[in-house]
Parts: sequence; C-alpha cells; structure tokens
Amino acid sequence: MRKDSEEMCDSSNCFPLQAMESAKLETVCIFGTGDFGRSLGLKLLQCGYSVIFGSRNPKSSNLVPKGAEILNHAEAAKKSAIIIIAVHREHYDFLRGLADVLKGKVLVDVSNNLKINQYPESNADYLAGLLPGCKVVKAFNTVSAWALQSGTLDASRQVFLCGNDAKAKEAVMEIARSLGLMPLDQGSLLAANEIENYPLQLFPMWRLPCYICAVFTVLIFLYCLVTEVFHPLATRKEDTSYLIAISIPNRVFPVVSLILLALCYLPGILAAIIQLYKGTKYSRFPDWLDQWMLCRKQLGLVALAYAFLHAIYTLVMPIRYYVRWWTNSYLITQIKDNATYPFSNYYAWLSDSYVALGILGFFFYVLLGITSLPSVSNAVNWREFRFVQSKLGYLTLVLCTAHTLFYGGDRFIFGPFYRWYLPPVFVVSLIIPCAVLAMKFILIIPCLDQKITRIRQGWERKSKTANMNC
Amino acid sequence: MRKDSEEMCDSSNCFPLQAMESAKLETVCIFGTGDFGRSLGLKLLQCGYSVIFGSRNPKSSNLVPKGAEILNHAEAAKKSAIIIIAVHREHYDFLRGLADVLKGKVLVDVSNNLKINQYPESNADYLAGLLPGCKVVKAFNTVSAWALQSGTLDASRQVFLCGNDAKAKEAVMEIARSLGLMPLDQGSLLAANEIENYPLQLFPMWRLPCYICAVFTVLIFLYCLVTEVFHPLATRKEDTSYLIAISIPNRVFPVVSLILLALCYLPGILAAIIQLYKGTKYSRFPDWLDQWMLCRKQLGLVALAYAFLHAIYTLVMPIRYYVRWWTNSYLITQIKDNATYPFSNYYAWLSDSYVALGILGFFFYVLLGITSLPSVSNAVNWREFRFVQSKLGYLTLVLCTAHTLFYGGDRFIFGPFYRWYLPPVFVVSLIIPCAVLAMKFILIIPCLDQKITRIRQGWERKSKTANMNC
Amino acid sequence: MRKDSEEMCDSSNCFPLQAMESAKLETVCIFGTGDFGRSLGLKLLQCGYSVIFGSRNPKSSNLVPKGAEILNHAEAAKKSAIIIIAVHREHYDFLRGLADVLKGKVLVDVSNNLKINQYPESNADYLAGLLPGCKVVKAFNTVSAWALQSGTLDASRQVFLCGNDAKAKEAVMEIARSLGLMPLDQGSLLAANEIENYPLQLFPMWRLPCYICAVFTVLIFLYCLVTEVFHPLATRKEDTSYLIAISIPNRVFPVVSLILLALCYLPGILAAIIQLYKGTKYSRFPDWLDQWMLCRKQLGLVALAYAFLHAIYTLVMPIRYYVRWWTNSYLITQIKDNATYPFSNYYAWLSDSYVALGILGFFFYVLLGITSLPSVSNAVNWREFRFVQSKLGYLTLVLCTAHTLFYGGDRFIFGPFYRWYLPPVFVVSLIIPCAVLAMKFILIIPCLDQKITRIRQGWERKSKTANMNC
Repeated sequence: MRKDSEEMCDSSNCFPLQAMESAKLETVCIFGTGDFGRSLGLKLLQCGYSVIFGSRNPKSSNLVPKGAEILNHAEAAKKSAIIIIAVHREHYDFLRGLADVLKGKVLVDVSNNLKINQYPESNADYLAGLLPGCKVVKAFNTVSAWALQSGTLDASRQVFLCGNDAKAKEAVMEIARSLGLMPLDQGSLLAANEIENYPLQLFPMWRLPCYICAVFTVLIFLYCLVTEVFHPLATRKEDTSYLIAISIPNRVFPVVSLILLALCYLPGILAAIIQLYKGTKYSRFPDWLDQWMLCRKQLGLVALAYAFLHAIYTLVMPIRYYVRWWTNSYLITQIKDNATYPFSNYYAWLSDSYVALGILGFFFYVLLGITSLPSVSNAVNWREFRFVQSKLGYLTLVLCTAHTLFYGGDRFIFGPFYRWYLPPVFVVSLIIPCAVLAMKFILIIPCLDQKITRIRQGWERKSKTANMNC
Repeated sequence: MRKDSEEMCDSSNCFPLQAMESAKLETVCIFGTGDFGRSLGLKLLQCGYSVIFGSRNPKSSNLVPKGAEILNHAEAAKKSAIIIIAVHREHYDFLRGLADVLKGKVLVDVSNNLKINQYPESNADYLAGLLPGCKVVKAFNTVSAWALQSGTLDASRQVFLCGNDAKAKEAVMEIARSLGLMPLDQGSLLAANEIENYPLQLFPMWRLPCYICAVFTVLIFLYCLVTEVFHPLATRKEDTSYLIAISIPNRVFPVVSLILLALCYLPGILAAIIQLYKGTKYSRFPDWLDQWMLCRKQLGLVALAYAFLHAIYTLVMPIRYYVRWWTNSYLITQIKDNATYPFSNYYAWLSDSYVALGILGFFFYVLLGITSLPSVSNAVNWREFRFVQSKLGYLTLVLCTAHTLFYGGDRFIFGPFYRWYLPPVFVVSLIIPCAVLAMKFILIIPCLDQKITRIRQGWERKSKTANMNC
Repeated sequence: MRKDSEEMCDSSNCFPLQAMESAKLETVCIFGTGDFGRSLGLKLLQCGYSVIFGSRNPKSSNLVPKGAEILNHAEAAKKSAIIIIAVHREHYDFLRGLADVLKGKVLVDVSNNLKINQYPESNADYLAGLLPGCKVVKAFNTVSAWALQSGTLDASRQVFLCGNDAKAKEAVMEIARSLGLMPLDQGSLLAANEIENYPLQLFPMWRLPCYICAVFTVLIFLYCLVTEVFHPLATRKEDTSYLIAISIPNRVFPVVSLILLALCYLPGILAAIIQLYKGTKYSRFPDWLDQWMLCRKQLGLVALAYAFLHAIYTLVMPIRYYVRWWTNSYLITQIKDNATYPFSNYYAWLSDSYVALGILGFFFYVLLGITSLPSVSNAVNWREFRFVQSKLGYLTLVLCTAHTLFYGGDRFIFGPFYRWYLPPVFVVSLIIPCAVLAMKFILIIPCLDQKITRIRQGWERKSKTANMNC
C-alpha cells in the first residue's frame, strides 16, 4: 500500500532523536505484561508515546521495556484515557473490580481466541458487557507480536477496528497510524466477531476449490494411468512408466483446468434456471449453490494455475529426451524407407489452429487472472467487472473448448485411440464445458434472456405491482 | 483489499445470533420500495439496523423484506435522521412537499442515470437544490442491487461518497462500513457528477488505445497477407494460406507491439519540443496531445499484451507441424545431398543475440507492466515512478528495436526479401521506433536537456523573474 | 485504487460548468508564487476553490493563474483559514513577522529538501517551532508540480499527511480529496521527518539485494567464462565465444537465482540459532542480520526475475541456430554410422524428472511473487502470510534444489566435466541451498522446534516468570 513508514520509524537513529526534541505524545496504559503487551509497549515507546504498564505484580519491572513505568492496575489506569487490555479473555473478570476507575475510558480489546467462534459472543462484546461504562474498541488483534518487533509487517500492516463510540475509535486509529499501521474501520462492535475470527483463518475461501481440484486431479490421473501406462503394459508388455513425470501431468492439467473453468460458469447458469423456474429473484438459492457461487473466483484461479502449468509443460516438449528420441527415430525410419511424406495443408491448418486457439485461450485466462487481483478489480466499476468476468470469461471457455476439439481432430471417431473401450481423456474433459456452453447458448435466446433480465431487475411472476417504484 | 467481512456478515448463522444479542443499531429510513431499495433494506436489516420504508402505498407491505416497517413518506421520515432516497430522479418532485419534515436530515442520493451527463447538473445537486434545508450525501450508486444480495461484491466494494456536510458524510460512511463496504470520501457535492457517471463507464481510458491498436493490427495483417499469401499465390501458384493461423499473427503482434511502445514515448517527446519552442510550460498542449499523454499507460499495456502473445507464438514454433515438416525435409535434403553445412560462428552470434535481446526486452516489458499495477504504482514515489517509466521504458524500447534490427540482420539489403517492391514487414515496424529514439537522442544532448529541465521547473523565456520564490 | 476522479475533474468541460453553477468552495491562501504554488493554485481553482496568493511583490500578478487574487502576505492570510506555505524552508523566517495574523490558522507545510535528513528536525517541526500559535499540517510534498498540471498522477495520487491537530488535518484531507488525491493520515507531526524523506528515496530497500545479486552474477559469469570459453580455447583452440549470448547467461541466471532464494531463508535460520543460543527473543540481532531480514522480500523478487529469465532462455533453446545445428549434425552422424541408439527408460525418467521439478519450482516461485504484490499480501492475514512465505517458500527451495540435483545426474562424479579441476557451476550453486536445507532440517527436529516456538512466544531462559500474564 504505502512505503514502509513503519520501517523508517524503526530505524535506529529515529528513537533517541525524536524522543528528545519533540513533545511526548499522550500516555497509553497497557494491562498485561505478556509477550504482546510488551511488544506493543516497546513499539509505542519507540514512536514517542509514554507507556504505563498495569500489572498485578508491579515489582517485576524487569519484564517491561526500558522507559515504561509499571504500576498496579488501578494506578496505571488513572494515568491514561486509553487502556489496552493485553490479557486473555479468561482473566477479564478482575476488570470488574476496576469498574469505577475505568469509567468513561477507552478500553482496547486486543485479544484473540484459539478457535473460530470459540465463545458465543466476541471477546470485545464480553468486555463491553462486563464494563458498561467504558468505550470498548476492538483493535490490533490482527497484528502479531513478532511482526511488531521485527518490523516485518508486510502481511499485517492492516489493523481492523470496530467500536460503538466514534471518538474512541478515532483515538485508537490515531495510535495505529503513529505506529506505522493502517487502521481500517469496520463499523460497530457487532463486527468484533469477524475481526476476532479473521487471524485464525487459513484461506477459508480456497478450501472448497482446492478440494474439488484435488478430486478431479486424482480421478483424471488414474484414468490416464490406466489408458497410457497399464494398457500398454498389459497388452504389449511395454513399459511406458516414464510418461508419469511429464506426459500424464500434461494431460491432467489441461483436462482439470477446462473442467474447473466450466464449473466457474455452471452455478451462474443453474441460478438463472432456478430464477426462471421460480419466477423471482427474492427466494434464496440452496446453500450448496450459494457456496459454489462465492468460490467461483478461487475456482477460476486454480484453473488458471493448471492452465499455466499446461502451457509450460507443453513448451518444454522439444527439450525432453523422450520427445527428441522419438522425433529422431521417426526421421531415421523415414530416411531408411526413402519415403517423403508430402506436406499436408490440412494438417498444417489443424495443428496451427489448435495451437493458436490454445494460446489465445491462455491469453484471456491470464487477463481474467490479472483482473481478479484485488487492486485491479477495485479499480473497475461493476459494469466493467461484469464485462470482464462474464464476456471475457465465456470467450475464454469457448476458446479453450475449441482448442480441445481441434486437438481431438480426427481422433474422436478413430478406433485405435480407444483403449479398453475408454475414450481418450480429452473426450471426457469436453463433457462439462460443452454442456455449460449449450445451456448458456439456450439462455441467451432473446425471449429467455429478457425474462431473466426482468427477474433480476426485481420483477416477480406472482405480483404484478412489484417493480413499481416508491 | 481486505478479507470479505461482508461475506462473514452474510453467513447464515450471523443474522439471528447478532440481532438477538446486541442492541439494535440506529434506524435508517428508505424512500422507495424498488429493487435497489429492497436489497439495501435487506442488507441493513441483516447487519443490525432497524429499517423503515417510506412508500406512497404503505399497504403493500409484502414488497419489503421481513423485519422492516413500511409507512407513508412523512411518518417514515420522522423516525430516522438518515433517509435513503431510492427513487428515480424523475420522481424527486414529491419530496418538495416533505420539505418541513425532512429539514436538517441527511438525505442519501443513491440514484444513477442511464447516460453519461444526462442532465445538466448531478442528481444530488438537483436534490440539494429542491431541499435546501437538508444535508445531501451522494453514496451507494456504485453498488449493484444484485451484488448486495448475492454477496459477490468483488468489484463494487467501494462506495464513493460526497457531500457538503462532514458529519452527514461520516454517518453515511459508518453505515457503509457496517455493510462491509469500503467508503471513499470524494469531497464536496461538486464530485457528485463524476460519481454518477462512474458506474456508466466501460473502460473509457482504454477506448483510444484499443482503437489505435486495432487499426495497426488490421493494416499490418493485410500487409503480411499480401506479401506472404497473395504474392506466392500469384507468382508461384503456391498455397500458403496455412500461415494465417500462426505465422502471420506472429508477425503482426511484434510489429504492432513495437509501434505501440514507440507511440507511448512519442507524445513525451512532442511535448518537450513544444515546450522548447514556446519557451514555457504554462501554455496548454493541443487537445489531441493531452489525450494521447493520458492514455500512454493503456497503450503500453496493449503493447505488452501483444508482446506476450508474440513470445508464446514464438515458443510454440518447434511444436508446429509446419515447422517440424520443414525442419525434417531440410534435414533429409541435406542427407541425400551428402552435404554438411559447416557451423558458422557468425550466425550463432547473430541468432543468439537477436533472441537474447528479445528476451531481455520482454523481461523489462513485463517489469513495466507489473509496476503499472495500481497497488505497485501506489507504493512507489514520484521519483521512483519516473525512473521506472522513463529510464526502464526507454531501455525496453532500445532492446526491442535492437531485437528487430538483429532479426533483420542481412535481410535489409537482400533483394529476394522484397516482394512486389514491398519491404519485409519488420522494416516497416522500425520506422516509428527509430524516429522516436533519434529524437530522444537529440533531446538528451546536454544543452537541450538543461533547457527543458529549467522550463519544467517553472522557468519562462519571456519573464526572467518567474522562478523567484515568494 | 480507484478510478481517476482526478482525470474526470481535469477534463475540459468540467471546469467552466461547475465553477458557474455551484457555490464556490472555501478560500485557500497560498504563500509563494513559485512553480509548485502556482500549479497547486491552478488545480485548486479548477476544482472550485477560491485562491489567494500571498507574495512579497503582489504587483507581479502575471505570475499567478487566471482567477486567483494576489495580495501581500498579511492581507492574503486574513482571508483564509488555511494557508499553504509554498516557500523554501530557508525563507520561513519572514513568517515570524506574521505571527499575529497567522494565529490559530492552519499552516500547510508542502516543502521538500534536497537531501535525506538535511536538517536536524523536519521542516514542519521547524515551522511549528517558529509559529507556536498555528496548527501545522505536513502535506502535499509527495505530489509533483508537473504531475498536478499534466494530470498524470499515477504514482503520486497519495498525499501523506501528519499534524498534531485532528481538525486541521481533516480540513487539509478534504482539500486533497477535492483535488482527486488520496490523503493518508500518518499520525502526529513526528511523522513529518519520514514524509519529507519519502520523495527523495530511490528504491532504498532494493539497493542491498541488487548489489548482492550483481556480485554473484559477475562471479558466476566469470566462472562460466573460464570453464566454457577460455578452457576450450586454451586446450583445444576452439572458439566457443558464441556461448556468451545465451548459453552462459542461462547458467548464470539459474545459479544466482537458486543462491538468492537460499539467501532469503538463511537469515531466518541464523536468527533462530541466535535465539536458541541466547535463550531469549528480547535481545537485538546484529545490525547486518536485521538489514538482511528486512530485504528478504526484495531478494526473493530478484531471484524470481532470474528464474523467469532462466525459464525463457531454456524454452527458446530449440529455436537457436546453435542448438539446431548440433541436433542436425548429431542426427546426421547417427545416420551415417547406421547406428540406432536404443531408447533408455532411465534417461527418459531422469530428463523428465528434472524438467518437471524445474517447472513446479518455477510455478511456486511465481506464486510467491504474486502473493508479495502489495494488494494480495494486504488481503491475507498473518497466519496465511506465514504459511505462504514459509511453507511454500521452503517447498520452492526444495524443488529448485532437487531440480539442480537431477540436472546434475551422473555428472557429479564424472571426470570429463571437471575443467581445470573446476567443478561444473551447478555444483557450486548447490552449496548454500543444501546448507540452508540441512540447517532447517535440524531446526525442525521436535525438541529444537518446541524450544524456538516457546522463545518466540516470549519465554526466556533466565527468568521463569516471564511468560506469566498480567
């Protein structure tokens, strides 16, 4: 986002210089001398704040960073308008005894849980319930103590904040900014739940797409193993196991990529069919469809990753020993037979067309990937986003499907390519994309398209007054 | 930008839980029960707000989401400090009758038009004119009803706001944040015009570059068609139409890419010449030059796209049937003739140099593309940006021009490559880049360079006191 | 970030239209009629503000943009609550005389210095010291006059602000927003130093990585030159200088890339060893280690750039004259000798494995590069960031090291590959990566891993009460 002002602040010469010359910033109180409390206190000191730690055991002052005071909780709280509660939720109870001294103060809840939705209400809500006279702000929980100290804040420069008191939030945001962090206001304390769950997540939106991708990858890999390794071994005693390293992955990647790309567009079609059938857009979709629609972006990016691998696996072909050996041996045979195979315009067209379609498909694939980068998709409006994701997306699907069809070429009907009655794997890969394209083709027939458009603008079949305004 | 807090809020278990436990947020009033009004109302309800719809026909309560109240306009307005006007501009007149009850309230104009600059003043300005006692805030018009409901807010998480009253804006921003959207303050109500035009645009900055690119693409394609397909057909009755799929595009892409790259740097040179001639930087450039300068980034990205396609089209060469056939037939001829062509150090150098120059040029091309991503270009300062776009940009242009020159090699002078007196297309492609580089070379001669630098620092030829400070 | 509202504002039809119809925005005073002052004034006028210039020499009104007033300093200051000080720091002294009239006003310091840390305190601090009764806000120094006028604000749309008065800051932010810029609040006036240094920097974080990379590149290049050009020349009088264009770079790039990738992970391992040895995380690392850790991201990106070049240099191999000549001559020899080399399953496996490992390594390399884009790394939480950078990073290192090992294959032991007793360069490249992987392997032994984890959670060897909370 912006240059590392944090790192500037961290640089060695900055602390002594500024602390001398400039008036000290306000005093911040921190309850708790655990790791996070100490790291935050050190950082606050470095950035010009006065820091007072509140502790049950104020004698153990060796625990707190140099320059900070350490007092008991009540005394510490009196000295500052902002108190950071760097204590586990399980120990919040002791704060009830300090209700009088904390009255009207800003309490910053920085706590995290060990599991998602560990407690029925968020820690910040719980704190606000314990001390109704305080202004509770949830903040800093997404920042790690390690990152605060080491200055490697790349991933956690963002501080999500929420709270019911605007001024309290503004005061905490000001502190975050002084620390070189980027505060992001998330609204009222209702958002605390999400803010607390946030640092516990590990790519939640990627789980389903990766799972779907893994299932297809394993299935297609086994299919290829049977037709291309087991079949020659069983029928001709031929060892083609060396195909496992590149040739088979280079069948798996494009096939799964094409299927996943089609699966990105299938839920939109199903949604349109459901809306057409129900005649309204105000009824909920089934849960599985909702989830599917929400992970389309991730599904598309996994498909792009596979397409990328397919592209490189294809481009290295002429370098591979296996390919070079076969090319040479083919040529030697040709020379020994004194045969010259004439140049076939038809095959030149077919081969070039399928390669060109693949390249163009890959190009639009990459374009879709680039536009799904957060900073790019933030810079386009809704109309542009839909244009890219829908129009360009379908163009990509059409190009990739055509690429596979041209690759197949004559082989769709020729018997020798069927092993153990199994069709070649590219035939399998075409089922879902062709079905999606066929359904889309039906849905853009004018009469159906108009109906869907009207439904999506709020029209309902049952009530004829529904789309009247005001 | 940030994790989908919106989606978190949307998750099924969130609504009932939070609505029960937490105190309700403030009450928001919505005028209009059209699609957008209902969608926004539903979203507000889900995020903890009380929602009251104002309608001409308050009996038709089946139209509004469950949990919302529906009253006539005046009664509804009384219950809330914030009123969202989800009504078309054409119907704003009825609000005049409510002037008394609306006095001092915050009116949120969410309207969009059908065309850019449809009305002389913005809808929000018009509303502010109708109700001078109200604080009008323009907001939410960039968010689509469909996106609000489905939760697919990727492209429209940003809410552009403007208004003349800071507190009113802050209140609306708070609502936007609670809905999981990202409010972006655009200043006073003067900005409403741009905010209203924003969702109607479809890549306005890309139109001119794409048009320029399309014209060059068609011209160069026809040129190649004449020299490489029509010429052999006419002179030797040879059918080389199979070149259309890959070989000819792979001439068109690099040629157009190089021309477009040169066109990115031409306006800067023209501007410098104009400034040198006029002796001041305070006179306006002609309009065409202004427009050209503003679309340089897009021009460069189109050029990068073509360079990317050229790279892949080149890398697939050894896979193509046409190339393999010719390689084999060349080899067979060589063997039959019992000839061995000796290894030529000169050709090894020439071939490798032109490939290496192309790769390095492409590498810097990609680097330029990456630095033009919004999130990357936001992270660099002006000095760094100019270093990348100017220094690295010219390096790229020099490398790509040299790549083309080395590709040409001996062929510039050899007659056989001229068909119908037309030079090979790469000769054509070199005209603009070489002209740009030559002019740039003249402009960086110290005496001229110093003059331009001084002019750009505010010096003017006529007045000698101009660059005096204070 | 967002659409170019700036460009919208800049468009020709916007200025006259809005200036007529809408009420003028507030009045802004600018001290100084230098280049930046005039550019900012013109922009403010275009966006609807009234602008008054304060000048020592108010008669020279031809210097200021049309529509602006020009008065002497005192009169100008009286007319506006916000005064932009577009004067060099050296001339600030005259402001002392205006202390009375400036009292309570917002002074915007837009100054820049010529060198980093030119003065002991920041210009804004100095201004605040001169005029204690004013509210000083540092802003606009990152915006260039040239960019303001030409509308090419890509790189400098961000306006960093700081100041001790929240309302003064908000007023300046409002102006910045109206000008189509994006204000970023950096906290109190303490941050002015960093804000003033910011526009003077030229990729400060990239300097060390580029230097390290350059040193390794030169060393490895010379090593290859000796073994592959000088050795054949000296021993066999063979001119292999044509290898310099592609073959030798294609050894240098992968070798340096692998070394740099390993150097990204080495400091983390050294840090863990130091922490294990000292038994605490609260002691500072040596400075060189701190610096090394802070530039790991840039080091990794340089490594990725080299890996990218290696990938393309490898893929063009079959196109190169040199490679094609050797392939053909090898084939011709084979045919003449009437020999057929049998297909080797072992070599097929070896060749394909090394290619496949390289491709997968490159794939994860690219993935790491994408996640280090600011907009992507901002969208992940700390846990996800560590997962990607640590887990995926080590996976990449393992794959790339294995790729090199498989590439070596039999050649590690075969004498003919040792020239002048120098091992092939890929053996050299393996030293650091293998050392890093071996150390990492030792550090993830459970007993050591647990100890490091505890230390990083704040545990200290000497004090047993240290990790007690509150």
